[in-house]
Amino acid sequence: MPNAPEIYLLGGYQTDFARNWTKENKHFSALMRESVHGALEACDIAPQEVESAHVGNFAAELYCMQGHLGAFFTEAHPAFSGLPTARHEAACASGSIALLAAGAEIEAGRYDLQAVVGIEQMKTVDAGTGGNYLGTAAWYEDEAQGIEFPFPKLFGRLGDEYDRRYGLKDEHLAEISRLNYDNAKRNPNAQTRTWYMNREHALSRGDDNPAVGGRIRISDCSQVTDGAVCVFLASRAFAERYAHGAGRRLEEIPRIKGWGHNTARLRFDDKVAESATQRYVLPHVRSTITAAQARAGIEGVAGVDGIETHDCFTTSEYMAIDHFGITEPGESWKAIEESWLEIGGRHPINPSGGLIGAGHPVGATGVRQVLDAWKQVTGQAGDYQIEGARTIQTLNIGGSGTTSVSFVVGL
Amino acid sequence: MPNAPEIYLLGGYQTDFARNWTKENKHFSALMRESVHGALEACDIAPQEVESAHVGNFAAELYCMQGHLGAFFTEAHPAFSGLPTARHEAACASGSIALLAAGAEIEAGRYDLQAVVGIEQMKTVDAGTGGNYLGTAAWYEDEAQGIEFPFPKLFGRLGDEYDRRYGLKDEHLAEISRLNYDNAKRNPNAQTRTWYMNREHALSRGDDNPAVGGRIRISDCSQVTDGAVCVFLASRAFAERYAHGAGRRLEEIPRIKGWGHNTARLRFDDKVAESATQRYVLPHVRSTITAAQARAGIEGVAGVDGIETHDCFTTSEYMAIDHFGITEPGESWKAIEESWLEIGGRHPINPSGGLIGAGHPVGATGVRQVLDAWKQVTGQAGDYQIEGARTIQTLNIGGSGTTSVSFVVGL
Repeated sequence: MPNAPEIYLLGGYQTDFARNWTKENKHFSALMRESVHGALEACDIAPQEVESAHVGNFAAELYCMQGHLGAFFTEAHPAFSGLPTARHEAACASGSIALLAAGAEIEAGRYDLQAVVGIEQMKTVDAGTGGNYLGTAAWYEDEAQGIEFPFPKLFGRLGDEYDRRYGLKDEHLAEISRLNYDNAKRNPNAQTRTWYMNREHALSRGDDNPAVGGRIRISDCSQVTDGAVCVFLASRAFAERYAHGAGRRLEEIPRIKGWGHNTARLRFDDKVAESATQRYVLPHVRSTITAAQARAGIEGVAGVDGIETHDCFTTSEYMAIDHFGITEPGESWKAIEESWLEIGGRHPINPSGGLIGAGHPVGATGVRQVLDAWKQVTGQAGDYQIEGARTIQTLNIGGSGTTSVSFVVGL
Repeated sequence: MPNAPEIYLLGGYQTDFARNWTKENKHFSALMRESVHGALEACDIAPQEVESAHVGNFAAELYCMQGHLGAFFTEAHPAFSGLPTARHEAACASGSIALLAAGAEIEAGRYDLQAVVGIEQMKTVDAGTGGNYLGTAAWYEDEAQGIEFPFPKLFGRLGDEYDRRYGLKDEHLAEISRLNYDNAKRNPNAQTRTWYMNREHALSRGDDNPAVGGRIRISDCSQVTDGAVCVFLASRAFAERYAHGAGRRLEEIPRIKGWGHNTARLRFDDKVAESATQRYVLPHVRSTITAAQARAGIEGVAGVDGIETHDCFTTSEYMAIDHFGITEPGESWKAIEESWLEIGGRHPINPSGGLIGAGHPVGATGVRQVLDAWKQVTGQAGDYQIEGARTIQTLNIGGSGTTSVSFVVGL
């Protein structure tokens, strides 16, 4: 295992995930621009200081008929003309892949200050078309073509697999939904902050909460949206100057202290077949989490004060609970029943509201998680602050548990 | 300027760019698999040795209705399950962007052996549809929407700009086309190796060589195709073991000795307006070339034995000639008239046939250029070998001169 990374996280800016940029008649470039200018202002960084930029995006080719997305960073400010840029993709983990690429360039000594933008504009198409586009995050021909809303069905089967191995109750999934919606009400950038959801509603089976794929109901789903998040990563040299300029000590600047990254087989059936005799349903997700903890030098989940995880569906958060080691495999329900996952609980998950509550602009999510981790460890998470948080871990997943990336952010 | 990189290039494999994988009824995953297995065999590397993989691809979402492309590397061999993978995009420079990301991770000490696959399957759609998809490499709404074959028109305007500043003759562009087709006949993987083209044909203006955009005729265009190229990048530690195992010295393994990377404004008009008072038509392309040379510690184009450049159209190679410093700005015609660009000439360009001759599977091109550079410096380029070549420089361009990446490969 290599040494802990030396990557400083200076902060950033998130757009309001409740906004619909198509209704506002605004182009992808405007979404990019708001996140970049917001981050420059929030971090008090001059455009001329930025040396390189990385864009995480899943499928603007489909949703926006636009590729070459790094170039839209260059367009965000005249000072950026000529800057090296790149776009990175691993389905719903695209934002984290961009962070990994930027961090590697800092560790390689190529640049001292990097912008990373996670961005997705998805409200350009109707729900059915968008659901079909999302199918390209799976093996499209085998798992999505001709299937209405393929991803709820795939993550429904994750629930089925838990049910088969250990048993799984709807009431525990409903609690996950309820908690994420509750937390989102505290988050001024959350998509669902004004929406209605409680445990009874999440458990209801009427027309107001229809099934969309197997055991997955509307209340179990995160919702796609439009959003962009820009953060700045820096070398130690830059972070020292930056801290000094702000009258702070280097130790007050959070770091990306550890990361993990794995890619499992693409088809859901292949993943589950591979894990049949193993301790975890998605063993490569488990490896990602433990690798990040090892690099950060922390001993398991007891070493983190909170988690921002990838609850694209309630079943993926249910999986995350035992994969993080909060419970033994198959016993995620215990953490739910004991209220460990609440903001004031023993293992807070998704104080932001997560994907279900905060919204899921696919390529932005991994960067949003890291920005929320930064807000927690700097005490700037407002009404969703975990008191005294110093270390937060993220988990960002692409496809049906295919690509997983985890970061440990801390002081 | 940072120190020269320590990235070793072990070789790789290119698929035959004349093949049409749709006609062969083969999926994107088969194209990936052939390139990966071919590279493992060519380099005598066991699948278990590979630690991470990077995929360069422009727009499989549009051409193949498939994203999450890193995961298809994982599918190429059972030993790869769990490997960290990522996909990288910068339009036609996507392959080089994947190489940059992989190299940064090696320099950061994250991995010792990386696979990099450049891949594009484009013959899935008719020429008009494909041309429209390529428009997403430009600012689609402003430069491509509703325009038939937008890219020949954009690169036609690059010719117009040269004509306005310095004068430009069709006969010089025709010579570029002729030379690339001639060289491709020596390349057993070239798309056009059996096609007919000579200077007279390239100059002809009849139905057999129609205009497709401004001054650009069919003979001025590279042709999209299906193709994948896989190469292996290694740390010094791995390269030492690898060389030793093969009974060779480390000094016999080529390195990526330098790189450059810049992103200019996206719209062609903005680029040209920005450069109006400057010495080069595309100054950020010039910076990319000189940065790669500086990192490699070589003094200008005299320090390289040959060039693999991005001749998506004859005008882009015409631009490359003066931007590489082979002539003064605007005097590229001199190098053509003096036959400097021939394989036996003073400054050989595109011994492989380049994009016009070898074919242009968009995301594969940057990796193909680097593999051809490896073949040259190891004396394995067969009939298109530059005698005694020890240092080759590449130039890969995304969009209308927007993202540019250059590598210096050498011993």
